[in-house]
Amino acid sequence: MNFVEAIARKRDGLELTSAEVQAFVRGASHGQIGDEQLAAMLMAICIRGASERETQDLVEAMRDSGASWKLGEAVPDAVDKHSTGGVGDSVSLVFAPLVAACGVPVVMMAGAGLGHTQGTLDKLAAIPGFRTVLGGSEALDRLARCGVSIAAQSEDIAPADRKLYLLRDVTATVPSLPLIVASIMSKKLAVGAHRLVLDVKCGSGAFCKTPEVARRLADALMGVGQRAGVTLRTLITDMSQPLGDRLGCANEVRAAIEVLSGAGDRRLRELTVELAVEGLVLAGRTAESARAELERRLADGSALARWAEVVRAHGGDPDESRLARPSRTVLVPARHGGFVAAIDGEGLGWIAVALGAGRRRQGDRVDLSAGLRVHARVGDRIEPGQPLATLEVGDRSVEIDALVSRAAAAFRIEGDPPPKTPLILARLGGAA
Amino acid sequence: MNFVEAIARKRDGLELTSAEVQAFVRGASHGQIGDEQLAAMLMAICIRGASERETQDLVEAMRDSGASWKLGEAVPDAVDKHSTGGVGDSVSLVFAPLVAACGVPVVMMAGAGLGHTQGTLDKLAAIPGFRTVLGGSEALDRLARCGVSIAAQSEDIAPADRKLYLLRDVTATVPSLPLIVASIMSKKLAVGAHRLVLDVKCGSGAFCKTPEVARRLADALMGVGQRAGVTLRTLITDMSQPLGDRLGCANEVRAAIEVLSGAGDRRLRELTVELAVEGLVLAGRTAESARAELERRLADGSALARWAEVVRAHGGDPDESRLARPSRTVLVPARHGGFVAAIDGEGLGWIAVALGAGRRRQGDRVDLSAGLRVHARVGDRIEPGQPLATLEVGDRSVEIDALVSRAAAAFRIEGDPPPKTPLILARLGGAA
Repeated sequence: MNFVEAIARKRDGLELTSAEVQAFVRGASHGQIGDEQLAAMLMAICIRGASERETQDLVEAMRDSGASWKLGEAVPDAVDKHSTGGVGDSVSLVFAPLVAACGVPVVMMAGAGLGHTQGTLDKLAAIPGFRTVLGGSEALDRLARCGVSIAAQSEDIAPADRKLYLLRDVTATVPSLPLIVASIMSKKLAVGAHRLVLDVKCGSGAFCKTPEVARRLADALMGVGQRAGVTLRTLITDMSQPLGDRLGCANEVRAAIEVLSGAGDRRLRELTVELAVEGLVLAGRTAESARAELERRLADGSALARWAEVVRAHGGDPDESRLARPSRTVLVPARHGGFVAAIDGEGLGWIAVALGAGRRRQGDRVDLSAGLRVHARVGDRIEPGQPLATLEVGDRSVEIDALVSRAAAAFRIEGDPPPKTPLILARLGGAA
Repeated sequence: MNFVEAIARKRDGLELTSAEVQAFVRGASHGQIGDEQLAAMLMAICIRGASERETQDLVEAMRDSGASWKLGEAVPDAVDKHSTGGVGDSVSLVFAPLVAACGVPVVMMAGAGLGHTQGTLDKLAAIPGFRTVLGGSEALDRLARCGVSIAAQSEDIAPADRKLYLLRDVTATVPSLPLIVASIMSKKLAVGAHRLVLDVKCGSGAFCKTPEVARRLADALMGVGQRAGVTLRTLITDMSQPLGDRLGCANEVRAAIEVLSGAGDRRLRELTVELAVEGLVLAGRTAESARAELERRLADGSALARWAEVVRAHGGDPDESRLARPSRTVLVPARHGGFVAAIDGEGLGWIAVALGAGRRRQGDRVDLSAGLRVHARVGDRIEPGQPLATLEVGDRSVEIDALVSRAAAAFRIEGDPPPKTPLILARLGGAA
């Protein structure tokens, strides 16, 4: 096959054959196709899109580019959970021990953060000694010991995705629905859980700016999963402001521990419980009994106890006092009074990165102690000078005045209260 | 500037700033931007297009990426001629000595062929000893000696174009109007003639399949030239069949010598004379007097004599008997009778490449003796078995039966005569 002709067909908006999609993915993982040709194809897909058939071909070719853990065959009731990425979102850290505490095993694959969101892998690095598992047999061992396996995206799972993701990051081809679907689902299918809970974010801080786009992404993800024999449940959730009240690595671990202790941020707690309900529904519970059991596990200390077990099973120290702390904190006062109409989560995410809590590029060191706390939420009434946020500065020298000013500007304050937006915008996969 | 953001803007169909265009071109010629980012930007431009302002910025940045010969300052009445590329098109070889024989200096920059057309540089290589000039001072010397300078696209002229052209060739981003305009005009402006004759090809064998697209390309080329102070005249000409009756390197030199001798292929002669008329009109003649003078130069032997001078001034031997000859010839008979309705020039061009007359990829060796002759033209009445073409085989071992069969299929023969298509479809730049 002449790969230039395949690029030309996608450039002109035509459908690629299965052989062309396979040649693309194989060429990416084996290095037979140059980066310039891969980049041209990625941009053509990004602009022209891909059909359902092409997307399925992409997912399967990327899944087959590496190992298959087949965890669902060994542990049929294991549930996997994935979020399309949000700011202040430490749901994974709560979801895994909470659902496991209800007797349902949880497998998770965690990625490093890049851009304005912190990755679960970076948050776990804030826990002294925590080691993510490296292969399928280790994952089974952790599942047997604590009901939870948390794996770093390893070399052997979907190597084509890793190659293409690095290229997408530098070629402005990240925001493509079929490429996002292929990246997520190829890894999920390679890990092989038979049950999957998806959290598709929607709003100013997410890839999906509107509920329509979020619905298209959710439908595409679920279609691919269902055709591969996976049972899925999906929530479309609001990302028009940060989910929880903390951003940063150690910070988001603390936020998770607070919720696991039965308290914590109201929105973080609500979304985690609703996703956990979906996980238990996949395991055969009714939504009502699931919600009651989850509330019980949060109230009676068993979720928090399971968190400690999970941390220990992964080699970590669950002692919260050992989490890194910022060297100083700086308040961000409101410039004027009114109602919080919107909070630019992406903007706050980039401020956290500037403080050291994330990476601008591959290989950047992350400051585990840095981050910020959000004190005002959309709809809150604010007095002039009232603290909107606290910047938490670690070991990095930063231009703090500029960051305070940017943080204040991330809160849009208006005279009238905004319309209320629900946290859960849609629930897909049948009645819960 | 973050170049990823610039790629994202073009991906979304937004206009690039002048600084972004300049960073793109500078990054290409200096190697600061990786091939994968250049390829993504090229594909985004190929699909989204570019505004007149962006195209002008591209041209100027690419022109300024290398040397400026400023030939038009030293020789104000020198005329440059460019064709967008056709099959069996040896117009340049006739145009240069013919126009020079009328007292108007001609500067030309010749490229190597890639794909289904032969480049002027490859044709000139068929002339023993012919050396194209390498720099601006050599070009001035040749102009003074014989009224013609033929230069290979040298390292110092528009290096950004050379880099981007190699990338475009492998990333399916050749057929883009703004990229074509930038590639052509950046080199023309760097050479610096103040007068330019353009031949924009239109038809199945050209980038412009329809007169509308050809008109858009012509307008864009002329707009860029005029804004840079160049006076232009443009013909839009038919490329729905090969221009002349010969394809191949030595072959096309022979075709040129035939026309210069006052005979030769009718269509090749007609187009060359019409383009030469435009060149003389740029020098202040009327079209009528120009046409009469050109016919006189072809008839009285002075055009042919000037050809010999041009060849000698460039170090070559004008003795036609020294041109390479094929080792054998194979006739292509018509499978059935009727009228020639169309001839697939691109298909014939690829057959010539298969015979060795061109390159599939950079670095391929060209067989100067190989090529083909076309015996039937659109509109001709054909008897079954009548020869449509002759394949001329050089030193390469080829699957001749398959090539004969492909060559026969390149001639579409139908029961009724086709409508006549004029050779000159439009004349732009004022009344001639």
